[in-house]
Amino acid sequence: MEISIRKLEHIFLCSHCNVEYDRSTLLECIELIHKGTSNINFDDINTEVKLFGKRLSAPIIVSGMTGGFRGAEEINKNIAKAVEELNLGMGLGSQRAAIVNKELEDTYRVVRDYTESLVIGNLGAVNFIKDGWDLEVIDRAIEMIDADALAIHFNPLQEIIQPEGDVNFKNISEKLKDIISEYKKHRDVPFIAKQVGEGFSKEDAKELEYFDAIDVQGSGGTSWAKVEYYRVKDKEKREILKNFLNWGIPTAQSILEVKSSYNKIIIGSGGLRSGIDIAKCLALGCSCTAVALPVLRAALKGYEKVVELLSKYIEELKITMFLVGAENIEELRRIPYILKEPLKSILVERGCKV
Amino acid sequence: MEISIRKLEHIFLCSHCNVEYDRSTLLECIELIHKGTSNINFDDINTEVKLFGKRLSAPIIVSGMTGGFRGAEEINKNIAKAVEELNLGMGLGSQRAAIVNKELEDTYRVVRDYTESLVIGNLGAVNFIKDGWDLEVIDRAIEMIDADALAIHFNPLQEIIQPEGDVNFKNISEKLKDIISEYKKHRDVPFIAKQVGEGFSKEDAKELEYFDAIDVQGSGGTSWAKVEYYRVKDKEKREILKNFLNWGIPTAQSILEVKSSYNKIIIGSGGLRSGIDIAKCLALGCSCTAVALPVLRAALKGYEKVVELLSKYIEELKITMFLVGAENIEELRRIPYILKEPLKSILVERGCKV
Amino acid sequence: MEISIRKLEHIFLCSHCNVEYDRSTLLECIELIHKGTSNINFDDINTEVKLFGKRLSAPIIVSGMTGGFRGAEEINKNIAKAVEELNLGMGLGSQRAAIVNKELEDTYRVVRDYTESLVIGNLGAVNFIKDGWDLEVIDRAIEMIDADALAIHFNPLQEIIQPEGDVNFKNISEKLKDIISEYKKHRDVPFIAKQVGEGFSKEDAKELEYFDAIDVQGSGGTSWAKVEYYRVKDKEKREILKNFLNWGIPTAQSILEVKSSYNKIIIGSGGLRSGIDIAKCLALGCSCTAVALPVLRAALKGYEKVVELLSKYIEELKITMFLVGAENIEELRRIPYILKEPLKSILVERGCKV
Amino acid sequence: MEISIRKLEHIFLCSHCNVEYDRSTLLECIELIHKGTSNINFDDINTEVKLFGKRLSAPIIVSGMTGGFRGAEEINKNIAKAVEELNLGMGLGSQRAAIVNKELEDTYRVVRDYTESLVIGNLGAVNFIKDGWDLEVIDRAIEMIDADALAIHFNPLQEIIQPEGDVNFKNISEKLKDIISEYKKHRDVPFIAKQVGEGFSKEDAKELEYFDAIDVQGSGGTSWAKVEYYRVKDKEKREILKNFLNWGIPTAQSILEVKSSYNKIIIGSGGLRSGIDIAKCLALGCSCTAVALPVLRAALKGYEKVVELLSKYIEELKITMFLVGAENIEELRRIPYILKEPLKSILVERGCKV
Ligand SMILES: Cc1cc2nc3c(=O)[nH]c(=O)nc-3n(C[C@H](O)[C@H](O)[C@H](O)COP(=O)(O)O)c2cc1C
Ligand SMILES: Cc1cc2nc3c(=O)[nH]c(=O)nc-3n(C[C@H](O)[C@H](O)[C@H](O)COP(=O)(O)O)c2cc1C
Ligand SMILES: Cc1cc2nc3c(=O)[nH]c(=O)nc-3n(C[C@H](O)[C@H](O)[C@H](O)COP(=O)(O)O)c2cc1C
Ligand SMILES: Cc1cc2nc3c(=O)[nH]c(=O)nc-3n(C[C@H](O)[C@H](O)[C@H](O)COP(=O)(O)O)c2cc1C
Repeated sequence: MEISIRKLEHIFLCSHCNVEYDRSTLLECIELIHKGTSNINFDDINTEVKLFGKRLSAPIIVSGMTGGFRGAEEINKNIAKAVEELNLGMGLGSQRAAIVNKELEDTYRVVRDYTESLVIGNLGAVNFIKDGWDLEVIDRAIEMIDADALAIHFNPLQEIIQPEGDVNFKNISEKLKDIISEYKKHRDVPFIAKQVGEGFSKEDAKELEYFDAIDVQGSGGTSWAKVEYYRVKDKEKREILKNFLNWGIPTAQSILEVKSSYNKIIIGSGGLRSGIDIAKCLALGCSCTAVALPVLRAALKGYEKVVELLSKYIEELKITMFLVGAENIEELRRIPYILKEPLKSILVERGCKV
Repeated sequence: MEISIRKLEHIFLCSHCNVEYDRSTLLECIELIHKGTSNINFDDINTEVKLFGKRLSAPIIVSGMTGGFRGAEEINKNIAKAVEELNLGMGLGSQRAAIVNKELEDTYRVVRDYTESLVIGNLGAVNFIKDGWDLEVIDRAIEMIDADALAIHFNPLQEIIQPEGDVNFKNISEKLKDIISEYKKHRDVPFIAKQVGEGFSKEDAKELEYFDAIDVQGSGGTSWAKVEYYRVKDKEKREILKNFLNWGIPTAQSILEVKSSYNKIIIGSGGLRSGIDIAKCLALGCSCTAVALPVLRAALKGYEKVVELLSKYIEELKITMFLVGAENIEELRRIPYILKEPLKSILVERGCKV
Repeated sequence: MEISIRKLEHIFLCSHCNVEYDRSTLLECIELIHKGTSNINFDDINTEVKLFGKRLSAPIIVSGMTGGFRGAEEINKNIAKAVEELNLGMGLGSQRAAIVNKELEDTYRVVRDYTESLVIGNLGAVNFIKDGWDLEVIDRAIEMIDADALAIHFNPLQEIIQPEGDVNFKNISEKLKDIISEYKKHRDVPFIAKQVGEGFSKEDAKELEYFDAIDVQGSGGTSWAKVEYYRVKDKEKREILKNFLNWGIPTAQSILEVKSSYNKIIIGSGGLRSGIDIAKCLALGCSCTAVALPVLRAALKGYEKVVELLSKYIEELKITMFLVGAENIEELRRIPYILKEPLKSILVERGCKV
Repeated sequence: MEISIRKLEHIFLCSHCNVEYDRSTLLECIELIHKGTSNINFDDINTEVKLFGKRLSAPIIVSGMTGGFRGAEEINKNIAKAVEELNLGMGLGSQRAAIVNKELEDTYRVVRDYTESLVIGNLGAVNFIKDGWDLEVIDRAIEMIDADALAIHFNPLQEIIQPEGDVNFKNISEKLKDIISEYKKHRDVPFIAKQVGEGFSKEDAKELEYFDAIDVQGSGGTSWAKVEYYRVKDKEKREILKNFLNWGIPTAQSILEVKSSYNKIIIGSGGLRSGIDIAKCLALGCSCTAVALPVLRAALKGYEKVVELLSKYIEELKITMFLVGAENIEELRRIPYILKEPLKSILVERGCKV
């Protein structure tokens, strides 16, 4: 199947069907504490953060989703306009299509016509093995969109369940370590290790310490096994897929696993659906958060809908900060919270100090 | 919207709709122990307590709810007559309306035509900032109803979700500390820090040590987010509110949090709906308990209904005392109980010794 | 209401309605361990025990239920015939009716026409206070039925919820201690402290150490609040009763509480409904078990039904013994079992070593 | 009832009815950890193991199920062909029928016409007592099918609930110890202790240390009480059976119990229904796994269906290995996993180190 048709199908499915995990993000195991006196002025609340050299009005970025086919421009444009208006950040979908076919570059580059805010490029880790990608590809990806940072996505589940998948991940993190350290000599752009909805473990995070940031993209939101389940006709294949619908590390667990073995920037993501979810990720120690699916659905309806959605998240985040008595993001990252079961026991089992 | 119309709307909604939390008070995690021999005579049971200088026949007060509009007299009168008949205590709703408009004073003062029992005044903490209230306002509030004590309510959730809300709580507890200590030089009336259904944390309680009592008013009963949810027409605002429907510290948790960092009088409240609930609060260490919503509903039907309801609570309290073998409230406060999950783990997480 | 009519009403309700607790006995928290090799011969299994001087073919007695009105003879006769046939034990209902009215003695004495097996008399603890009962009453109760032992039932819940209830339990256990020790000088019959479906706590058991046995009769089976709930017409009274429908110490908890502070004979009872339940009580350390409600229902249909029911329990008990590899009751009392949540935490909370 | 008709009835019931436990295997308490980088090449994954002298392409054997009546050949043939094609192993059903009646030997021996792979013989432990079996019977069973190993099944539950059951298990493991050690002098074939769906405990495993392997066959899959429940007409017998429908040690628990007191080969089995289940057993330390019911159902439809089913399991096992980053079975046996409640507490209760 042609790559652009598959991408269209993904977007169609994500927009119309239930493509989310039945199992939760485990963020419901994190309980923020009502501060009965609040002690702050709502109008003083400041949600600003600095990330990858850019100042954002709130610690929210749109996760990388699309590009590489006719139609993607519209989506990317809508996200870019909203992100510019609210001064947030955004990622782009895998740039492989444009690496392969230069004519598709504008489906990504379009965002720079609309925003000067934080824009993050996106390449697949597995392609550095399969397609033998090198420093030049990284250069092209960054320059194509004047990227502030580059996300390398690791997606073994997605690859193994797709008929067209690339499944050779042998020594992938060693290989990337070499390429990235080589590239850094040439240009100091931040690199982000990113999942696509299955999360990283603490062992992964240790292995990926050479990355400047980890975007956990844990499970509980968009489920690639579910998306694929809709596409598969073959009964036996569907039976197999069914067994993996709940595979992955829930977002709250993934954040705390990564935090226990990795000292740099952590982005909380995967299934975030409200400003309270966002606040919880920050309270767990993340520097920023990211959202994909709900933004995609909004972007298909127009840029105003994206503004509306992200404004709602910011408003909820601010209300939460008011109710826990945190005036800014640094304070929010230090508030007490309750860690409930089953997450608490899971972390004990995993040997993660919390 | 005019304040008196909003108050009427609140009362209407509280009376006809489900305005209570879906999440519980966590009082179901407290299990009293059947005493198989009882060893006491039911007819000897004494439920008397002394509170703020008045002797009550049972440790139950009606939480402050109303006043400040035509129609409130009737409700307050019904509560006052019942409280007098049973020799219990009662609070009044926020007296701000009468502070602003002297003509409305009789909607509060009416209670003194019917009861000489314990009556508690009520002012909003946030107004000491917003309206620059001073010692004189306190004086007026107390004298208006010959108050035995004055409750200062902290209601950040309520303010932030109301379109008309006051949201500057900056340094609110320091400010109140000054005002109260100043006022105490002049007249030694007890001050009570009170929530309106979201509870205080142990950190709050430490901050509020200058109050003579804390009325926890934890979550599990009347939910202001739910009340507001009925009032809001705007779809986006409703979406935001939805996320806060379960916000707050459950009553049982709030009592034990406060107890762990505060040594004075604790009033157990928020979602108490039976004499067993009341007995549990006392077993947890409270000196008294308070009930709002069910009393409001009864008061709208007539004073006899209030007597009936409160008598039922007292009867249930006495049966519970008989079954745990406690002859008086002091004994009840020392009986053993079982602390069950999830409350037990929550308190461990919160570092509260129990 | 006349006592005999009330008793009839109780029997009618117990026979036709759901009168059992919604909350369980917590016996589901006890899990016996399958012995994969069994290692015993089913035909060698011996379920005999000795209790109060009589040898029983299995550790099962029928709990005391009835007597004192015309019609009770039939029920008691059916139980007695079955108990004789299977060589088990039985208790009789409260003998107060016959103490008050000698003409009713035959409604109890009838059992001795049918069985020479273990028969246990029954008096209410509260009547020793209310009616000033003395050694003579004990004598009459024992001689009336040639009792092998005498159960004294403690039933504060039952008394407090009945309109006709006696509610003076003041110093009841001290008073009984004197009477029983006095009586023992005269005749050495075993005395049993018995609940009626709400269980004893470890504190109770310590207080009752002068009894020769404790029959826990914990909650999870027949609920007297539920029985009474059917009888009460008054709406307010029903509301009160509702709050006590789950009152009581579940049977498994009560057994382990009592065991932790009492060294003599423990009878496991309250809500036992199968031979596995019976085996669990024995594994917890009981010397015998007792069943009421299901036997009553069988006895109303004829003595064969009682034999059938009790035979089924014995058969299930034997199968369980075969599957855990216990050849006799002594071995069964020493087999390993798993103590599961929430019972495990409850016992930790209660300071009971297990 | 004739033995062959009963066997047919079993197969008919297992094929058409729900004959599985309501209670789970507890394998859902084992959570494998997503390895976000995978770091291996799917095409390098090697699932081979060596078991009882034969090399299998994957650690999966078909549990012993049938033989001994006309019609069994077809089933056994279909399994044998599939097992040969995929290079897996298989067991046969109890060979007692052919021990008793030589004419039925071909219903077992047929498998050797189709496979040279691992074939395991099967005898009932209880028959060594009841029928006084000796070394010669073992010889005949092994030679009948040129067995690579011999499973001795312990099935106390099955025997006790069947009207025709043999229930003398007295000293069964001592007796077998003598016979097996005697036999081993003569021929060194591996002996496997096997349940039939109720699992072994750690105490059992210690007792059975003279066996070369333990095939746990824990509960959660085929339930013999349920199978029997369909066959029983008598109401009282059904009532008894009902109480044992959940009897047994769940598979995950049984594996960990056995592992804690037994150092040789453990086969994980009982209720395995996917390649993830299989991977979990291996991660828990098993050397191989076994499946019965689903294979039976497939075999009744034809050998291709067996190939299809087992291929699906292998594919799922490989995907799981890819997602946890294990290149071969030895690596899979050492990956980290999360042990969740209630299994974790059960193992603590049982004194099993994990
Ligand atoms: C339609 C769609 C396309 C996506 N494409 C990419 C991609 O190209 N590269 C990538 O790293 N992640 C991609 N993702 C994954 C998201 O970045 C994100 O990790 C995932 O959707 C989980 O977040 P959510 O639960 O908020 O949707 C895509 C997600 C969606 C919904
Ligand atoms: C209609 C209504 C009006 C209230 N007004 C006030 C108020 O003016 N001041 C205040 O401190 N609390 C007010 N409360 C809050 C109650 O005092 C109490 O804290 C809350 O309702 C929780 O208790 P409950 O669950 O028993 O209703 C009001 C409650 C209700 C239901
Ligand atoms: C109809 C009925 C009458 C009872 N009467 C007495 C009684 O007179 N004295 C007594 O000690 N217990 C009495 N009991 C209580 C039983 O002995 C037993 O404690 C209780 O029913 C719990 O056991 P079960 O769950 O097996 O029914 C009675 C129970 C029933 C059902
Ligand atoms: C129809 C059928 C017949 C069986 N016959 C035997 C047998 O003869 N000998 C034996 O050891 N186990 C026998 N078993 C038990 C299986 O080997 C296995 O232990 C049990 O079915 C649990 O595994 P499952 O949940 O995968 O079905 C039989 C199982 C089935 C379904």
